[in-house]
Amino acid sequence: MGLQKHSKVLNETVEKLSDESSYKQLFHAYRDEEALPSGEVLKDIIDLCRAILFPGYYGNARISKQTLRFHTGVNVETLHTLLCQQIYAGLCLADTSCTSCPEEKIQAHAEELTEAFISTLPEMRSLLATDAEAAYNGDPAAQNISEVIFCYPGFRAICNYRIAHQLYKLRVPFIPRMITEMAHSETGIDIHPGAEIGHYFSIDHGTGTVIGETSIIGNRVRIFQGVSLAGEKLPPDENGNAIRGVARHPILEDDVTVYSNATLLGRIRIGKGATVCGNVWITGDIPPGDVITQNKVTK
Amino acid sequence: MGLQKHSKVLNETVEKLSDESSYKQLFHAYRDEEALPSGEVLKDIIDLCRAILFPGYYGNARISKQTLRFHTGVNVETLHTLLCQQIYAGLCLADTSCTSCPEEKIQAHAEELTEAFISTLPEMRSLLATDAEAAYNGDPAAQNISEVIFCYPGFRAICNYRIAHQLYKLRVPFIPRMITEMAHSETGIDIHPGAEIGHYFSIDHGTGTVIGETSIIGNRVRIFQGVSLAGEKLPPDENGNAIRGVARHPILEDDVTVYSNATLLGRIRIGKGATVCGNVWITGDIPPGDVITQNKVTK
Amino acid sequence: MGLQKHSKVLNETVEKLSDESSYKQLFHAYRDEEALPSGEVLKDIIDLCRAILFPGYYGNARISKQTLRFHTGVNVETLHTLLCQQIYAGLCLADTSCTSCPEEKIQAHAEELTEAFISTLPEMRSLLATDAEAAYNGDPAAQNISEVIFCYPGFRAICNYRIAHQLYKLRVPFIPRMITEMAHSETGIDIHPGAEIGHYFSIDHGTGTVIGETSIIGNRVRIFQGVSLAGEKLPPDENGNAIRGVARHPILEDDVTVYSNATLLGRIRIGKGATVCGNVWITGDIPPGDVITQNKVTK
Amino acid sequence: MGLQKHSKVLNETVEKLSDESSYKQLFHAYRDEEALPSGEVLKDIIDLCRAILFPGYYGNARISKQTLRFHTGVNVETLHTLLCQQIYAGLCLADTSCTSCPEEKIQAHAEELTEAFISTLPEMRSLLATDAEAAYNGDPAAQNISEVIFCYPGFRAICNYRIAHQLYKLRVPFIPRMITEMAHSETGIDIHPGAEIGHYFSIDHGTGTVIGETSIIGNRVRIFQGVSLAGEKLPPDENGNAIRGVARHPILEDDVTVYSNATLLGRIRIGKGATVCGNVWITGDIPPGDVITQNKVTK
Amino acid sequence: MGLQKHSKVLNETVEKLSDESSYKQLFHAYRDEEALPSGEVLKDIIDLCRAILFPGYYGNARISKQTLRFHTGVNVETLHTLLCQQIYAGLCLADTSCTSCPEEKIQAHAEELTEAFISTLPEMRSLLATDAEAAYNGDPAAQNISEVIFCYPGFRAICNYRIAHQLYKLRVPFIPRMITEMAHSETGIDIHPGAEIGHYFSIDHGTGTVIGETSIIGNRVRIFQGVSLAGEKLPPDENGNAIRGVARHPILEDDVTVYSNATLLGRIRIGKGATVCGNVWITGDIPPGDVITQNKVTK
Amino acid sequence: MGLQKHSKVLNETVEKLSDESSYKQLFHAYRDEEALPSGEVLKDIIDLCRAILFPGYYGNARISKQTLRFHTGVNVETLHTLLCQQIYAGLCLADTSCTSCPEEKIQAHAEELTEAFISTLPEMRSLLATDAEAAYNGDPAAQNISEVIFCYPGFRAICNYRIAHQLYKLRVPFIPRMITEMAHSETGIDIHPGAEIGHYFSIDHGTGTVIGETSIIGNRVRIFQGVSLAGEKLPPDENGNAIRGVARHPILEDDVTVYSNATLLGRIRIGKGATVCGNVWITGDIPPGDVITQNKVTK
Repeated sequence: MGLQKHSKVLNETVEKLSDESSYKQLFHAYRDEEALPSGEVLKDIIDLCRAILFPGYYGNARISKQTLRFHTGVNVETLHTLLCQQIYAGLCLADTSCTSCPEEKIQAHAEELTEAFISTLPEMRSLLATDAEAAYNGDPAAQNISEVIFCYPGFRAICNYRIAHQLYKLRVPFIPRMITEMAHSETGIDIHPGAEIGHYFSIDHGTGTVIGETSIIGNRVRIFQGVSLAGEKLPPDENGNAIRGVARHPILEDDVTVYSNATLLGRIRIGKGATVCGNVWITGDIPPGDVITQNKVTK
Repeated sequence: MGLQKHSKVLNETVEKLSDESSYKQLFHAYRDEEALPSGEVLKDIIDLCRAILFPGYYGNARISKQTLRFHTGVNVETLHTLLCQQIYAGLCLADTSCTSCPEEKIQAHAEELTEAFISTLPEMRSLLATDAEAAYNGDPAAQNISEVIFCYPGFRAICNYRIAHQLYKLRVPFIPRMITEMAHSETGIDIHPGAEIGHYFSIDHGTGTVIGETSIIGNRVRIFQGVSLAGEKLPPDENGNAIRGVARHPILEDDVTVYSNATLLGRIRIGKGATVCGNVWITGDIPPGDVITQNKVTK
Repeated sequence: MGLQKHSKVLNETVEKLSDESSYKQLFHAYRDEEALPSGEVLKDIIDLCRAILFPGYYGNARISKQTLRFHTGVNVETLHTLLCQQIYAGLCLADTSCTSCPEEKIQAHAEELTEAFISTLPEMRSLLATDAEAAYNGDPAAQNISEVIFCYPGFRAICNYRIAHQLYKLRVPFIPRMITEMAHSETGIDIHPGAEIGHYFSIDHGTGTVIGETSIIGNRVRIFQGVSLAGEKLPPDENGNAIRGVARHPILEDDVTVYSNATLLGRIRIGKGATVCGNVWITGDIPPGDVITQNKVTK
Repeated sequence: MGLQKHSKVLNETVEKLSDESSYKQLFHAYRDEEALPSGEVLKDIIDLCRAILFPGYYGNARISKQTLRFHTGVNVETLHTLLCQQIYAGLCLADTSCTSCPEEKIQAHAEELTEAFISTLPEMRSLLATDAEAAYNGDPAAQNISEVIFCYPGFRAICNYRIAHQLYKLRVPFIPRMITEMAHSETGIDIHPGAEIGHYFSIDHGTGTVIGETSIIGNRVRIFQGVSLAGEKLPPDENGNAIRGVARHPILEDDVTVYSNATLLGRIRIGKGATVCGNVWITGDIPPGDVITQNKVTK
Repeated sequence: MGLQKHSKVLNETVEKLSDESSYKQLFHAYRDEEALPSGEVLKDIIDLCRAILFPGYYGNARISKQTLRFHTGVNVETLHTLLCQQIYAGLCLADTSCTSCPEEKIQAHAEELTEAFISTLPEMRSLLATDAEAAYNGDPAAQNISEVIFCYPGFRAICNYRIAHQLYKLRVPFIPRMITEMAHSETGIDIHPGAEIGHYFSIDHGTGTVIGETSIIGNRVRIFQGVSLAGEKLPPDENGNAIRGVARHPILEDDVTVYSNATLLGRIRIGKGATVCGNVWITGDIPPGDVITQNKVTK
Repeated sequence: MGLQKHSKVLNETVEKLSDESSYKQLFHAYRDEEALPSGEVLKDIIDLCRAILFPGYYGNARISKQTLRFHTGVNVETLHTLLCQQIYAGLCLADTSCTSCPEEKIQAHAEELTEAFISTLPEMRSLLATDAEAAYNGDPAAQNISEVIFCYPGFRAICNYRIAHQLYKLRVPFIPRMITEMAHSETGIDIHPGAEIGHYFSIDHGTGTVIGETSIIGNRVRIFQGVSLAGEKLPPDENGNAIRGVARHPILEDDVTVYSNATLLGRIRIGKGATVCGNVWITGDIPPGDVITQNKVTK
């Protein structure tokens, strides 16, 4: 008798959940042959990028200089295969309006984008070398540069960001955001792939740090945990819809430092060499070289 | 000789650790047939809920409208089996005082609770549809609603919360908290399953956000990263023990917005449509429509 | 033709990435027989420590008092094997200058350190028992001490810290930091293994909390989410290099409470029993018993 | 120095193995987008077929009559997806001569074949029901029909054969052979997918039994371990190549029994109801009803 | 359009397969809370038995004499848990007639059987020690007894048989057969759990060897690959059903040797010390000490 | 009460099993740092060998001629690492008498043997190419050479044998036997690694085939399922121990064919081009070119 009732409730619920009116907003209708981007494969892709960029630190193999080329060759080829599939999946998911456009064309486009991405890896390695150096020089607790590459969440998040930013610049949909969200989940650091960030950049501790879509960050900038480079709220367009893509996040010029839990809101400019102390809420420009602190505390 | 010493130290440590006086506070004694709730199975349960609620976005299968009912049927049945086991485990773990109460009764109770939970899934889907819409409309960086469902940590945390809250209302022990802690670990967003939250709710970025056990949140509320709806510290009871379950967290009325890193402490009321800017510390009521900002900063 | 171009771009990129000038800063050259420390094995090590310290709560087995000694014996032996390998790997990675020193010596040193660590487990259990009690007594939302041990991220992070701190005191390189970073990633709580922390310590919610390398924390201290015990920036040495290891983080005396998102910067002293409210930025000493709050907010 | 030599020998071996003259016979050159058939996926496919054909015996789920349709629906859809991919892979691998023929055409053909296969599942179930009954009735050691379905290697091999035979009749390349080889490896029973076998067929014990490509077996036939229905060696064609596909294996009429380790060679006919005892070598026809035994043994 | 047809064929097939008339013989209807025995868990059970019986040869751990007791304790406890579940599942599956008998009673019976089995492990170890010695002494290719324990399929199959035979004697249904079938699949050696086999028994190579349900084998017997101890076909009972459990397989007295591919059929007796050479078919008694060979071959 | 008894029986059994007198024959005592050879790692090693020898057929990657060298380089390096560990483990296990000999020496020896093995891979590939051709030419059911490489158990077993034989010639203990036993388990074909086998060798179907330790097989030999090249039983030495390593298995000259289930026993010589038909038992020499069949069968 328990079983009878059980089946009844369950079956009724299944019917309700299978009714088109119930799911219409939340159902993803597939095209033939199409798959969603996969978080697991993207994780493999990031691991491959790390194995290529920092040989010997990531990946299973023990690499010597004699065999580095073999490993790099295999890793680059595997990266090509996996990334191309994911970009293809991202293009299909984004292209919901035009479901009749031919698969081959999307496939060819995915291949082009993949190659373009891979060709930027050497330059990306140079840039990340400066970031690793910045983290090591800036943190007295760091024992050596290996520790930065191997353990530092800030460096890990910047690495994901630099990969995602290249894909973002190539207008790959979904994938860049998924890659920075992976770092967000692991490190608590949320850098939008659209942000522009110069070299020798470091984030210490980092949990809670947010760098919004249209932020611009110069060279040699240093940021701590809980810092928000936040977008100001824009009025909707005449139809009441959010306007997307407008510059609405801060600009940090070269050599700026922002301490923990500071919030910088809107398209403001923090001048070269300025220091923002912790826990402040800033909504206006700061001149070069200034040091900004929270008002005095009260007992 | 090394080996001798090795065994001696290890064996002595094993003896100390096996001594009852050493572990008495930290040992979990099993009843027969009983298992602890499993984080891994709860992860599968959440994945099943997502696969049921958002068909096509989660799960391995490529679902068409023709086969949606089959998939929903199988997923609901599997959810029933797994959730029932976990609720049973939770009931056993909570029921430490009454170890003689019969298994069958606990089992029957677990079945009832599972069915009651499953029957709320259609309504939960409707509610989550408003949350997804809120996130999309509120974030100019969002490309489309698929991205919200697929990538947004805020939406992910709210989804876990809404599942956990249903179980909390059914007085299922342990499991609700484990489910929100899973989201906490993945997203840095810590929503207590006891909080009451209206529809069209969104959390942007979200890392560090805390919504305490007795918080009450109205409709169309929007919250950012690092916001705390914190409980005020209550005096202990006459025996010096913490008093549990008293209302001690804020009430946010409809249409409130709270920006990053603001802390709202105690059973205060933030009036309809009020805006709390970032990095403030608030311990009193705010009238409807007010905009609260941090005091001016000092150079 | 697509394939031709494909191979050309890929091959060129492989050549660039295999050029010594490209990778020299970012390549880890192995010694024979050496492996990098493994995040996955460290995860197993932490799970083993938890299974040993809190019998019945972690691990696969259903333990009774009769068989507790068997389980403890096997777990301690497995811990010995795995930890010894990881310490050995850490010693090799750290010892980049002296690649000619004999393996046997490093191996023997790893064994010694492992034994020394294991012999502290009984004491560590006692200490963690006070931390669990503190979390339970301090949080009205906690149902019982099982919930604290089983679900509380703050307790989890403290547990990893106490393990890592023992290894840090034994001067094991890399591994302690990797262990606290694991907790950082899971919980958003970043406690440097070098910090010194008394008994009956609790962190509530915890996301974004940072406790720096040279922090000193007394007994019965309670900390909330987003709190930073941050290091002040020190001038470089005469060669322009960061000076490492200098005391530069706060001292919290016994019975201090620090609320959410407060930042305490530099070698300051927070007196016995003081309370620091949320969202403040403190750079000077606080006398015993004081209550510090953010300045008034402005509409 | 050890390392130097090591690298030299290894590098030379790599060069030799990468030389085209070395691998030319043994290298599989891929077409774009193509993958080899996968033994692991075929294993999943067989498991799916078993779950569909024998509901409740295979697969993870606990099926009730109420939910059988849901499970069958999901399993059939998943089978469709996986089998279609494998058939496509098999068609590509077979089609080495015509590498320019369009992918879409192969894909469409794979879909057709998959559907044709799936539509035969109900009939296949009826046939297998007779085989299970035959095994149960023929073996006094069998406790019930569940044991046959669940544990009997002979039934398992026949099940794989009946699946493979359908695919063979549809002229799917490679896949049928891989499926019977999977059973061969598990059970030691080697039935070529091309053999034709009537209903109510059973193989007891079965290790070492071989049923060749052009064998024809009637209804109610029973075979034991080590029996070979072997093909006679044919003269090569005028070019010295093996002639393929010619009828060269035995015909067993209805109700024949063949005992262990008997070898039946060539296109011979074993008449209705005949019995072949163990360890005989037969190269000529046997009249209906005859009983054939090995010549007397000698001390 | 392809998709339409696709769904139609698939849906029709699903309907046919879901029709009760189609599956009625081949559907396993579950009782509540019941699960089928699991091949994977039985594999774990066999691995546990091996780890207990041959410490140091199987299992992950490196065991020393000091820690052997710990490992044995944990392994025996885990074996108890897993085996009890599987015996319970086997009892439920067998008990199809009496679905109303109470779970608790079956559960209690499963516990009893499990304990009875475990208490025979020390004796089983003694017996297997003689089997290992027999294999080593009998095979000039064996280097030492470690190789026998570690690599010899014959010893592996005997080990599974001795475990299964204990369970068979306790009248555990299904599980014994599943355990010997696991060895059958791995080694090609098919020993029915009902057979009675003395000490110091060895099977060399072994593929294709079959030892039927009612076989009786004395001490110091040696058997080779492809040997069948086969059951003679019995007339059905008056209702035409197979008669089960009747003695119908050979008796091998002490010190018998049977060479490869010999078939011994029916309840015959092979006298003490007799030798049966390869490829013979024997259906009558053989006196003690005789040597039986195949008749002369013919060119 | 059930629990009490349970613990008593279990504890008593644990005590018996932990008593030294019980396990002394069956306990493997480890040296420090030593591990047993691992069947799982050997499986990976065989897969790597196949991926190296037959590029494109095995392994995950899609290899083109441009990237073959990269893949071969990585695979050879990985093979070196894994095989060296396994050979080391085998040497330790074999070296039970001399437990004081230095690890470094064993390690160096393992490296030498590994290199020596790897340097034979190109030649091994040439040899296997002739075996694949033989299988294809000899079996009218083979569609093409891809099918042989990809699906034929006979070819698979020969491949394992040729790998194992190289290691056997290098006097690596245990590992060769484990490798051929892996093939034995998968295919039912049991080739001792010590056998010497010429080129262009094929085994069809193969289940039950045994080729003993001192067998010598010429070129272009073809063997079927169930064939035994068996060793004659030798008298023990004066101490009653088996004499090991003496030539005691058949010699098959070039171009011999042996049909299914034939047993050839002892150091006999089957002359060039002879044919042995199925199910015969042969214990004497056969002149070149002869055709041997079983005596006539009897009704």
